[in-house]
Amino acid sequence: MQPFADRLADAVKGRRSPVVVGLDPRVKQLPDSLRPGDSATPDEIAAAYEKFCIGVIDAVSGHVGVVKPQLAFFEQIGPAGMVALANVISYARNQGLIVIADGKRNDIGSTATAYAGAYLAEADHGLASDSLTVSPYLGEDSITPFVDSAKQSGTGIFVLVKTSNPGGGMLQDLVADGKPIYQHVAEFVQRLAESTTSDSGYGAVGAVVGATYPDQLRELRSVMTNAWILIPGFGAQGGTAADVVAGFDENGLGAVINSSRGIIFAHAREEYASFGNADWQRAVEQAAIDMNEQLRSETPAGRL
Amino acid sequence: MQPFADRLADAVKGRRSPVVVGLDPRVKQLPDSLRPGDSATPDEIAAAYEKFCIGVIDAVSGHVGVVKPQLAFFEQIGPAGMVALANVISYARNQGLIVIADGKRNDIGSTATAYAGAYLAEADHGLASDSLTVSPYLGEDSITPFVDSAKQSGTGIFVLVKTSNPGGGMLQDLVADGKPIYQHVAEFVQRLAESTTSDSGYGAVGAVVGATYPDQLRELRSVMTNAWILIPGFGAQGGTAADVVAGFDENGLGAVINSSRGIIFAHAREEYASFGNADWQRAVEQAAIDMNEQLRSETPAGRL
Repeated sequence: MQPFADRLADAVKGRRSPVVVGLDPRVKQLPDSLRPGDSATPDEIAAAYEKFCIGVIDAVSGHVGVVKPQLAFFEQIGPAGMVALANVISYARNQGLIVIADGKRNDIGSTATAYAGAYLAEADHGLASDSLTVSPYLGEDSITPFVDSAKQSGTGIFVLVKTSNPGGGMLQDLVADGKPIYQHVAEFVQRLAESTTSDSGYGAVGAVVGATYPDQLRELRSVMTNAWILIPGFGAQGGTAADVVAGFDENGLGAVINSSRGIIFAHAREEYASFGNADWQRAVEQAAIDMNEQLRSETPAGRL
Repeated sequence: MQPFADRLADAVKGRRSPVVVGLDPRVKQLPDSLRPGDSATPDEIAAAYEKFCIGVIDAVSGHVGVVKPQLAFFEQIGPAGMVALANVISYARNQGLIVIADGKRNDIGSTATAYAGAYLAEADHGLASDSLTVSPYLGEDSITPFVDSAKQSGTGIFVLVKTSNPGGGMLQDLVADGKPIYQHVAEFVQRLAESTTSDSGYGAVGAVVGATYPDQLRELRSVMTNAWILIPGFGAQGGTAADVVAGFDENGLGAVINSSRGIIFAHAREEYASFGNADWQRAVEQAAIDMNEQLRSETPAGRL
């Protein structure tokens, strides 16, 4: 397969959209027509999640090129949820979408290789995706097995660098050797990105940097010149288009902006109330269109 | 349910054993009688993993009180693997064993709550365990949802503090505010452990500290006086009984020592060759007995 960074660039350019739609199904927020009752079994909840996510994919696939299932919500309902997750991943990939499995996996060497086998391998046992989010606390030898798999299979990883949550600074902002921990991680990411750079100018190793820290995003963009940046925290978490501007390169590439609740649960947002709960897919589609428009008009994504 | 820390103490005292048997199934290392062929389907591999892990549990459950399935190896074979994992977890719990799900999960607030729902909830959707390993890079508000769930359901977490792998120092050993990052994490763990302490003197929040760093283990034991320490890296990774001595309190509690390959693949170790591949369960049992004997004679576990 073509390198991940180039496939991601094509997906972004193909829809003129840097938007990533986060697939975070939650029972209580599903549209009325799909929401299972309080006594639903895991199988019933899993079936609802699968139907909902496929409905979201159908609604947005003409407008965005990337989706990001959040593994926790599928794992929460047990093995039945993982079956649904596998079906959602393969449905999205069959629609030509790039799938980022948001698992924030991390472990030591041979175990990291097993996670890579699950999410980044060419041999698909059900969960094979285009990319996986990875946590860096275990250090270099916990990341390189993912990089090796990614290179072999044309997939990629996004390493947590500076996360969007309020408490992220507890470790990430501690200063060692004159710079914050997140910058140590960023320099490590840049080394791996540079060593895997392909035609697009980006590498197989990217970074996660929250939209809620625009100053750090600017700084990190200049440190990680060859790394795609996945930016969560837009919308429901408070990040705006102005906050993510610094993530892009001059061509409007280099950054992909995730919105989960703001798009997939658009039916519950006041501004989309006119669609009504029954027409939830049109609300989802309109929210994706609106996010595209906003980013095209207020960020370098307009040059895509 | 009784608090996790007390249940763990009872399990350790009940078998006079601080041993945790790591359930890390790998296709190529399974005993001949269970090893699937090269063209095996995920379902066939999953069935072999389940049979193997249940065989290991049967062989060791008279001698040890705790098992630790490594989630990566089950995820590697997709949804079929998660079905096997669920069966292994419930089999072990039905045998009265404490199950530590080794997933090193981590995410921001509401997503962390979803992971806690999967592994630490009273409502079992298949993967409910007694404890979960958790990675701390995302900071305080990524850990507290796990603690809240643990308190409610009588379960626990083990937070990565100082890991056993050679590259773990990349972030963990960086010095900020006069002390290494792992010590910042340890102090955070101790605060959470102290606030959840129950009869045993230990709390619902424990720590992972590798056997390969005995000096740090001694230091960390004195920092985290109310935290159970899960110590991986014994045996195959190089840790010895002498290396883990400092993890115990004076009663032989406070530390549980994991061995995975050294026990579950004992049939392939020279010292157990006399059992033969066909008698792999007796090799596993003997390896568990020997590890108990060694820890009882060379560490405070002898006082159990």
